[in-house]
Amino acid sequence: MKKITVLAVALMMSVAAMAQQALWGGAMTVSPEINPDNTVTFRLNAPKARAVQVSGDFANGVANMVQNERGVWEYTTEPLAPELYSYTFTMDGVKIADPSNVYQIRDVASVTNYFIIGGGQADLYLTKNVPHGSIHKDWYYSASEDFTRRLTVYTPAAYDGKKRFPVLYLLHGIGGDEEAWMDLGRASQILDNLIASGEAEPMIVVMTNGNISQQAAPGYGPEGYPVPSMGLPKTMEGSFEAAFPEVVEFIDSNYRTIAKKSGRAIAGLSMGGFHSMHISKEYPDMFNYVGLFSAALNVNGQQEGSPIYQNVDQKVDTQFAKGVKLYWIACGNTDFLIQNNRDFMKGLDARGHDYIYYETEGGHIWRNWRDYLSKFVPQIFK
Amino acid sequence: MKKITVLAVALMMSVAAMAQQALWGGAMTVSPEINPDNTVTFRLNAPKARAVQVSGDFANGVANMVQNERGVWEYTTEPLAPELYSYTFTMDGVKIADPSNVYQIRDVASVTNYFIIGGGQADLYLTKNVPHGSIHKDWYYSASEDFTRRLTVYTPAAYDGKKRFPVLYLLHGIGGDEEAWMDLGRASQILDNLIASGEAEPMIVVMTNGNISQQAAPGYGPEGYPVPSMGLPKTMEGSFEAAFPEVVEFIDSNYRTIAKKSGRAIAGLSMGGFHSMHISKEYPDMFNYVGLFSAALNVNGQQEGSPIYQNVDQKVDTQFAKGVKLYWIACGNTDFLIQNNRDFMKGLDARGHDYIYYETEGGHIWRNWRDYLSKFVPQIFK
Repeated sequence: MKKITVLAVALMMSVAAMAQQALWGGAMTVSPEINPDNTVTFRLNAPKARAVQVSGDFANGVANMVQNERGVWEYTTEPLAPELYSYTFTMDGVKIADPSNVYQIRDVASVTNYFIIGGGQADLYLTKNVPHGSIHKDWYYSASEDFTRRLTVYTPAAYDGKKRFPVLYLLHGIGGDEEAWMDLGRASQILDNLIASGEAEPMIVVMTNGNISQQAAPGYGPEGYPVPSMGLPKTMEGSFEAAFPEVVEFIDSNYRTIAKKSGRAIAGLSMGGFHSMHISKEYPDMFNYVGLFSAALNVNGQQEGSPIYQNVDQKVDTQFAKGVKLYWIACGNTDFLIQNNRDFMKGLDARGHDYIYYETEGGHIWRNWRDYLSKFVPQIFK
Repeated sequence: MKKITVLAVALMMSVAAMAQQALWGGAMTVSPEINPDNTVTFRLNAPKARAVQVSGDFANGVANMVQNERGVWEYTTEPLAPELYSYTFTMDGVKIADPSNVYQIRDVASVTNYFIIGGGQADLYLTKNVPHGSIHKDWYYSASEDFTRRLTVYTPAAYDGKKRFPVLYLLHGIGGDEEAWMDLGRASQILDNLIASGEAEPMIVVMTNGNISQQAAPGYGPEGYPVPSMGLPKTMEGSFEAAFPEVVEFIDSNYRTIAKKSGRAIAGLSMGGFHSMHISKEYPDMFNYVGLFSAALNVNGQQEGSPIYQNVDQKVDTQFAKGVKLYWIACGNTDFLIQNNRDFMKGLDARGHDYIYYETEGGHIWRNWRDYLSKFVPQIFK
């Protein structure tokens, strides 16, 4: 057998490298570079560009990048606190992803780059040397639409097909789908880390697709072409809430769950908080723990006529009368929904219901929702 | 309870829409648009750009886009044959992803956009109205490196935890990882469709990470920052092949498999073909079916001293003597590895071994590997 050895290996590497260089039009540019002092340097190799900016959630607004003598645009931040940061570039007025950074996440119908500065709270978002749970993408039959819909399931590292575990149902916001909590929310890393440290009980987490007319996230569904889930029909008109028991039945049939109220929690962000409030009050024997993260409370759906949106106060009263071990509300102090949340809590106060409120800095952003998840999870199934 | 109804819903939608517009710097641009005659129109809203091109695998080379009076650059292709196509834009010399298209896939360390023109062979790549299998991301303990490594498992729709299924181990090429066959290879769609039509037997498919020093794909592993797997140490030096039984043991322990040679196949592309050849000859009682797709045959690893790379011909002879039900080799006629494959087959011929050879047009590209997978899978476990 003829041996080509090092030459051919080198050839393959070189072909791959050339393909990559061809694809990105030049030598490799390192971007972002996280420096030892936690400043971060961004670079874009664009000799012909006239102006390049970087926009990220690490600074107020937009920073101008400066072109060096090799045509590479650069900008270095101040030292950054631990966090998951996202950013994009703007080149001559066009927002683009950083072509040097394959860490990308989709939010609604846009793609941004991200990086993580570890330490403190942000350590929860890193894949650390702890036992890892598994991620499953399953399809369940939705009778309400007569099609199958995709969902994401996290099973903890201890899940071995013998022991039974409680289940957290974790719902996305408007524009999101069954990928959002994993990608933007770093849910599997947060769960892995909190379970490993003993702060959270081992649990199953089920992340649904709450867009009633959508089978799956863009690229995974039957659509020939992407349909951003924002603005999809039937997203907030009661069908998803009404049909939720079909999700619970699917999970209880296919995973080793603690299939009773004491073994079930439901939480969600924004529209997912709206869904969680309505589902938990509609089925008051189903969930012992409720988490409303920047929830779209005091908002009705597109079809006010849906039975789901009738007699809400009375149904919430029934839910509390039947017993809720934890009703947890969190919101940022500049969130456009904070007044809605305060109004909702006034109603709970007036009617004598117990809940816990956690208010943070900031607005309607994933940084808060990752924090809320990490604060909510240690409080359930204890 | 105060009702904010339509106003607040509109507000939420509008906030999301504004966020999106802010992110991409303008009104929504539709790109690509697949027209009824299967021509495709690409658009980039870049009033200040001086030159924009689109590069895709649907045409030879690069096409210049033309700016219209609103500042949007456009290009419309000829009618395209059914296929999954990938493309990028070049704006004033910088390769960028299409900001209007959230369908993106990572290949090695680059991100490209894609779209699918259905029909014919390409119908296999679409999510169709057939029973869907599940996707699992698990972590197994790798004794050779003393860490856990991530792998992807497809279980067919019929997998219910009772019946046992055969297993195809499906290996990526250099630069790839445990995501490659799912994202670029559309493996779950191909399997769903071929199983639903009865052309393939229901089977489990295991997609490993063959980079011995890497725990998981970028973003999922413990690295604080992306490390492109291309050029990672210890990628082709025998460790992965030698340690492969630990993968098989993990799968046989955690899934309901047919845990014997007649229930196992192994196949891979490029480096994964190299791995498949070496693993299957090293463990001749393990696999009944072998698929080498554009395989890096007649190439040695970085450590020629590894026992894996000793006495290859003799070990292959033993493998055939012990019985291989199918030894299937596929390559494109312009692939830079075709001569290596022809030399390898000359050796098999000279030593009297039976195999099937499938030669196609084209080079070392995913279009071929999706085709090869769809041709290989119907031939195994019959």
